Amino acid sequence: MPIVDSKTGKVLKDYNLRQLLEIAKDIRALSITSITAAGSGHTGGAMSVADIAAALYFKVANHDPSSPEWEDRDRIYWSAGHKAPALYACLGLSGYYGPDDVVKLRKLFSGFEGHPNRFKLPGIEASSGSLGQGLGLAIGSALNAKLESKSYRTYCIMGDGELNEGSVWEAAMSAAHYSLDNLIAIIDRNNLQIDGTTSQIMEIEPLASKWASFGWEVAEVDGHSIDKLIEVLKGPATKGKPTVIIAGTIKGKGISFAENVCGYHGICPKDGIKGSESLETALAGIGSSRYNMDKAKELLKIANSYQEEIDKKVDSSLPDYSKDYWWNSQNDMKVEMVPNRNGFGLALEKLGEDPRIVALGADITDSIKMSSFYNNHPERASRFFSMGIAEANMTTVAAGLAKEGKIPFIGSYGVFITGRNWDQIRTTVCYNNYNVKIACAHAGISVGPDGATHQALEEISNLYYLPNMKLVVPADSVEAQKATEAIAYIDGPAAIRYAREATPAITTIDTPYKLGTANIIRYRGIKDNFIDSFDTMLSTEYANEDEDLTIIACGPIVTEAMRAAYILKEEHGLEVRVINMHTVKPLDKDGVIAAAKETKILLTCEEHQIGGFGNIIAGIISEYKDADDPYKLKMIGVEDRFGESGQPWELMKVFGLVAESIAEKAHTLIKTI
Amino acid sequence: MPIVDSKTGKVLKDYNLRQLLEIAKDIRALSITSITAAGSGHTGGAMSVADIAAALYFKVANHDPSSPEWEDRDRIYWSAGHKAPALYACLGLSGYYGPDDVVKLRKLFSGFEGHPNRFKLPGIEASSGSLGQGLGLAIGSALNAKLESKSYRTYCIMGDGELNEGSVWEAAMSAAHYSLDNLIAIIDRNNLQIDGTTSQIMEIEPLASKWASFGWEVAEVDGHSIDKLIEVLKGPATKGKPTVIIAGTIKGKGISFAENVCGYHGICPKDGIKGSESLETALAGIGSSRYNMDKAKELLKIANSYQEEIDKKVDSSLPDYSKDYWWNSQNDMKVEMVPNRNGFGLALEKLGEDPRIVALGADITDSIKMSSFYNNHPERASRFFSMGIAEANMTTVAAGLAKEGKIPFIGSYGVFITGRNWDQIRTTVCYNNYNVKIACAHAGISVGPDGATHQALEEISNLYYLPNMKLVVPADSVEAQKATEAIAYIDGPAAIRYAREATPAITTIDTPYKLGTANIIRYRGIKDNFIDSFDTMLSTEYANEDEDLTIIACGPIVTEAMRAAYILKEEHGLEVRVINMHTVKPLDKDGVIAAAKETKILLTCEEHQIGGFGNIIAGIISEYKDADDPYKLKMIGVEDRFGESGQPWELMKVFGLVAESIAEKAHTLIKTI
Repeated sequence: MPIVDSKTGKVLKDYNLRQLLEIAKDIRALSITSITAAGSGHTGGAMSVADIAAALYFKVANHDPSSPEWEDRDRIYWSAGHKAPALYACLGLSGYYGPDDVVKLRKLFSGFEGHPNRFKLPGIEASSGSLGQGLGLAIGSALNAKLESKSYRTYCIMGDGELNEGSVWEAAMSAAHYSLDNLIAIIDRNNLQIDGTTSQIMEIEPLASKWASFGWEVAEVDGHSIDKLIEVLKGPATKGKPTVIIAGTIKGKGISFAENVCGYHGICPKDGIKGSESLETALAGIGSSRYNMDKAKELLKIANSYQEEIDKKVDSSLPDYSKDYWWNSQNDMKVEMVPNRNGFGLALEKLGEDPRIVALGADITDSIKMSSFYNNHPERASRFFSMGIAEANMTTVAAGLAKEGKIPFIGSYGVFITGRNWDQIRTTVCYNNYNVKIACAHAGISVGPDGATHQALEEISNLYYLPNMKLVVPADSVEAQKATEAIAYIDGPAAIRYAREATPAITTIDTPYKLGTANIIRYRGIKDNFIDSFDTMLSTEYANEDEDLTIIACGPIVTEAMRAAYILKEEHGLEVRVINMHTVKPLDKDGVIAAAKETKILLTCEEHQIGGFGNIIAGIISEYKDADDPYKLKMIGVEDRFGESGQPWELMKVFGLVAESIAEKAHTLIKTI
Repeated sequence: MPIVDSKTGKVLKDYNLRQLLEIAKDIRALSITSITAAGSGHTGGAMSVADIAAALYFKVANHDPSSPEWEDRDRIYWSAGHKAPALYACLGLSGYYGPDDVVKLRKLFSGFEGHPNRFKLPGIEASSGSLGQGLGLAIGSALNAKLESKSYRTYCIMGDGELNEGSVWEAAMSAAHYSLDNLIAIIDRNNLQIDGTTSQIMEIEPLASKWASFGWEVAEVDGHSIDKLIEVLKGPATKGKPTVIIAGTIKGKGISFAENVCGYHGICPKDGIKGSESLETALAGIGSSRYNMDKAKELLKIANSYQEEIDKKVDSSLPDYSKDYWWNSQNDMKVEMVPNRNGFGLALEKLGEDPRIVALGADITDSIKMSSFYNNHPERASRFFSMGIAEANMTTVAAGLAKEGKIPFIGSYGVFITGRNWDQIRTTVCYNNYNVKIACAHAGISVGPDGATHQALEEISNLYYLPNMKLVVPADSVEAQKATEAIAYIDGPAAIRYAREATPAITTIDTPYKLGTANIIRYRGIKDNFIDSFDTMLSTEYANEDEDLTIIACGPIVTEAMRAAYILKEEHGLEVRVINMHTVKPLDKDGVIAAAKETKILLTCEEHQIGGFGNIIAGIISEYKDADDPYKLKMIGVEDRFGESGQPWELMKVFGLVAESIAEKAHTLIKTI
C-alpha cells in the first residue's frame, strides 16, 4: 500500500512502474533545482537515493500526508540527513506541502534546512544530520511496535559512508538481539564518500557478510531498479531477523557530469544555470516532464523573491546608526576577507616538514583544510591516515601514535570531534596526557546553510573542563596559523576551534601573539584599511587608558567586537578595550582582572552557547577582583538554542552576533549604570 | 622470547610450561589476596585472564623490566582496565617492582589504582578503564611500527563485554584497512558481563565470523591452556591481516566459589579471610606455593599498616578545630547515611507503574539502581531493554522510544552516559527535544577505589550548555527520589546526576522541593539530630537574615556545606546561608542574585571540575547584580585534575571537599575582605 487515508484505510494514491519512474525523475529534478537555487547542497546522495525514496514513499510505505502523525504509519528514517533535498521532494510530491516550496532549500526561516528539522516540516520522522544515529532511532520505533503489538514497519535509509561509525554496529547488534523483523535498513551503496571511494576512506567490504554476522537477513539489489526495490522492500520478513537491503547505486545518478564524481558530494552544479555542468544540462539528462527547465526558471524566481524578502527582514532587524558600518560598505575601513580555516591549513602544511607530525582524517579533510598536509606533498602520504567517519577510533589511534612519539592532528567539524569521542578525549587522551592535537572546524553558526547539526556551539564547554587540555580559538586566518603552530609544540593534548567562512583579516604576521597571553586591541580612528585603525598589543604590555568598556571575545567574533569599538567611538564617543582571548585555556587571568578593575563594565562575546566562554570570564573576575570593585558584565552569545540554515552573515545578524548588536548592547549597558 | 636485556638482547628469564603454570597460579593468588586486602576489585576477570597474561608476559612478549620504555619492546595494552590486579601481578612478578606491593591495591597514593594509571607504575602502556578504547591505542602503536619499520608486535587484551562498544568495530575495521599484521587482539571470552551472560546482555555471537567479516584472521583457543595460547600468540602472522585470538575462558577461574558466577565480577570474597567464600578457600583452590595463606597473612599486614599510615596522613591534612565535627563523631548532631543512588532506584520503581516508563540498561543496572525498575516486577521485563555496553546506541534507541510516546530512562556512570554519547544526546535527543531521561550515576570522586576513569567530574559542563536539557543534582537520597520523579514528567530531555556512596540524609519527605527553585538552608544550633538543627525553605519564601556568607552547592556536597555552616557558627560565630541548588538547569537566578546582594560574600562548592558549576553562578551574579554591589565569590571543587583511587571519604578530605576545608576557606575569605 502506498499513500492511504488513515481514517478509512482506503488507498488514496497508487502508482504503476511507469509513473514511479516519472516520480523518481521529479525527485531528482526538484532536488537539483533546489540545490542550484540554494547555491549549495548534497547533489550526489540526493540523486543516488531517489529511486529508493520513490519506491518507499509512493509504493511501499503506508503513510497519509494529511495526517503525518498517524500512529499506524510506516516509519521512514533518513539517517543520512544530508540527502534532505530528496526527502523534501518526496514529502512535497506526496502532498505534505506544495512541492514547489522545496526550492527555498537552505534559506533562512524556510524550514527546508540543510539537514532535516522535524519541527519545521510535516512528515519528517526525526531531525538528523549527524551520521550513524538513524538506525538507533529506527530500532526505538521498531521496539515500540513490538511492545504495543503494532503492525507498522520501520525503514531506515542509510549511506554507505556512515557505516564507518561504530554506533551503526552497536545498533546492528541490538536490532538482531531483539529479533526486530519489523525493521528494514536500506543502504544507499554508492561507493563514494567525500574524500574518495569507500574503499579508499575505510574499507567496509565484505558488507553482506558483515551484516549477516551481525544477525541480519541481507538482500542485495540494484538501487536504481524500482521494481526490484519494491519487491525486496515489500517482501515478507524473515521471522526473528531484521533485514538490510544493500542497494547498489550510482552517486549523482541521472546527472551526467555528477555521476560517480566524488566532488559532487556536497555542491551544486558548478556552472550554475547554463553550461556543461549546469542545471540545464542536469535537467535535460534527468528528463522530468514536470520539473523541466521552464519550471525550473519559475522556481528559481520563487527562490529569488523569497531571498529578497529575507534580505529585507534581516537588514531591518539591525539597529540604525548614522552611517553604514558594515564590512567594506564605505570607501574607508577596507578589510580583506579570508576563511579562518585557511590558516590552519597553511600551518599544517608547514608543520608537515617535521616527520613527527602525522594527520588523521575523518572524510572531510578538504573542508577542514587538513588536506593541505598532503595535497602538494605526496611524500607525506604514509603519514596521513584516513580513519573514515569514526571519530572515537580516530582519537584513540592518534593517542597510540602520540604515545610512540608522533604529534598527531585529528580533525572534523567541532560537533563531531568533541562530541562523538568525548570520553576518548577524556580518558585516552587527557588522562594519559598524550600529545594529540584536535582540529575543531566549522565553529559557530557562521557555518551557514548546513544548519544546526553541523554548527558547533559547545566545544569550549566540552573541552575547557578537561584536565591537561589546552584550547585556542583564533580570530582570523593569520592567527589560526600561529595558533596551530603554537599548539603543535606544546606538550600534551590541545585543541583549536576555528571557523569555516571568510571573515575579516585583522592580524598580520607582525601582530604580537603569545599562547596564554591575550591581545588588547584599541580603536584609533578611521583609516583606509580597517586593520590600520587599531593598535594591538600583548595584555602584559598594555597601559590602562581608562576606557569606558571592555569587550572580551574569542574567535572571529573578535572582529565584530572591533567593529563595535569603531561604532561606539564614532556614534557615542566611547572608548572600548577589546580583548582578543585567543587562548581560552590557559586563560590570561591577569588581562581579565585588569580590565575589570580598570574599565568596570565588560561585555563578553562568543559565537558559542552563551556562557560557555562568558561564564569562565565571570568566574575569574568574581574570584580575583576586590570585593568593593564596582563591576558589571553582560554576555552576548547564542541564547541556549540551536542554529539554523541560512547564509553565514544572515545568521550572524539574526542571532545578534554582529557589531551593530554588540554596540547597541554595550551602549545600553553603559547608559543604565 | 620472554624477558630480555634490552641492551644486549640476551634472554634474562625464560620459563618452561610447568613454571608458567606456577606463575599463572601466582598471578591469581596475588590478585585475589590484593582484592581481599582492598575490600573491592574485579575478581572474575583477573582470574579469567591470568593464563593469557602469564603466557604473554613470561613467554611470548619481549620486554625488559629494567627498561620499561625500551623502544623495541612488544606492546601489551589492557583495554579492559578493570583486570588491573592481574596486570599488576604480572608486572611485579616480572620485576618492574616488588610483587608484594600489589597488596596496596586501590589504596590512596599507592599507585595501584583501581584501573591502571601509566604515570604511577612502570610497565603500563596506557592508562585505561573506560572500555572499548584499547584497540585503537594498539592500532596507533602498530601503525607506528609500520611507519618506522620496527619489528615489535602489539598485543591488546580485551574483554568480551566491551565488544558491545561500537568503537571496537571502528577499530577492527581500521586495523584491517591498514593491513596491520603486527597486531594481535586477544579476547578473554569468559561469557559473563555484570548484569548476566553476554548472550543475555547483548548477543555478540557468531563472534568468529564477525571478526572474519571485519577482515581479521581468527584463532579460537582454550584460554586456560598456556601451551596452546603460546602457540597462537607466537604464531606467524597472516600477511596483511591483523589476528584476533578468541580465548575461551571461565570467569573467576581457579576460585571454586567464583567460577562462572556473575556476581563475582567486581567484588572481593564475600566471607573475607575465612569461610566458604573466603581468601583462604580461594588460595587453597588456586594452590600457589609462593602466594599461599601464610604469605597472604603477611601481605595483609603490609596492607593494613600502609592503610594506617594513610589514615594518619589524611587526618592530619585537615584544619584543626576546637572539637571533632566529623559525621557522627559526637553524641549529638547524629545523621543517617544513605546512598544517593538509592533514591533514584526508589523513584524508578514507583514510576514503573506508569506503562509509558521504560528503562534501558548498559550492563550496570544494579550499580546505578536502575534494576529497581524490574527487580520485584517481573511483569515489567518487556519494558526493560538491555542494550549492552553501548551508550551511543542506547541513547538513540531511547530517543526512538520517546518519539513513540514512551518515557525512557537511560543510565550509566556519568562519564560514559554523557561522554560516549554526547553527540547523540545533542543531535538526536536535544535537537529533537525527545523525552529521554538520563541517569548519570557515580558522580564525583566519592566513587572511590575505582579511580579516575570512573569518577565523573564533567557532567554539568557537558549537559548545561545543551539547549532543551534540564539537569538536577540532588543532595541526598530522598531528594534524588523527588528529583527523579520530577524530571520524569517534565517535557523533553532531562538528566539527573547522582552519587554512589552513602552520604548524610539531610532532607525528608516533608522538606520542600520544587524543580527550578533552590532551597535555602540555615543552621539553628546543635540538636540531637543533624537534620533537626537546620531550617530548610524554598528560596522564594526566604526572608533575608543578613548572613555573613552564602555557600551555594549542588549534590551531596550540600551536606558538607551544611556542616561547614555548623562549624563556622560554632567556631567563629558566623551565620551562613546555604543554598541547595538541586536544579542546575533551569537555575534559580533570583535565589542567587538575592544571596549576592544580601550576603555579598559567596562560596560555591561542587564535587566536579571547578567552575563547571561555579562559573555559572558567577555568570548570573555578574550579569544581574547592580554594578556597585560589593561582592566576592570563591569556588571549591576539583582543581582541574583527575581523581584517584582511595576510600570515598579519604578522597573527599584530600581533595579539600569536606566541611572542614570549606569552613576554613570561607573564614579566610571573610577575614580578608
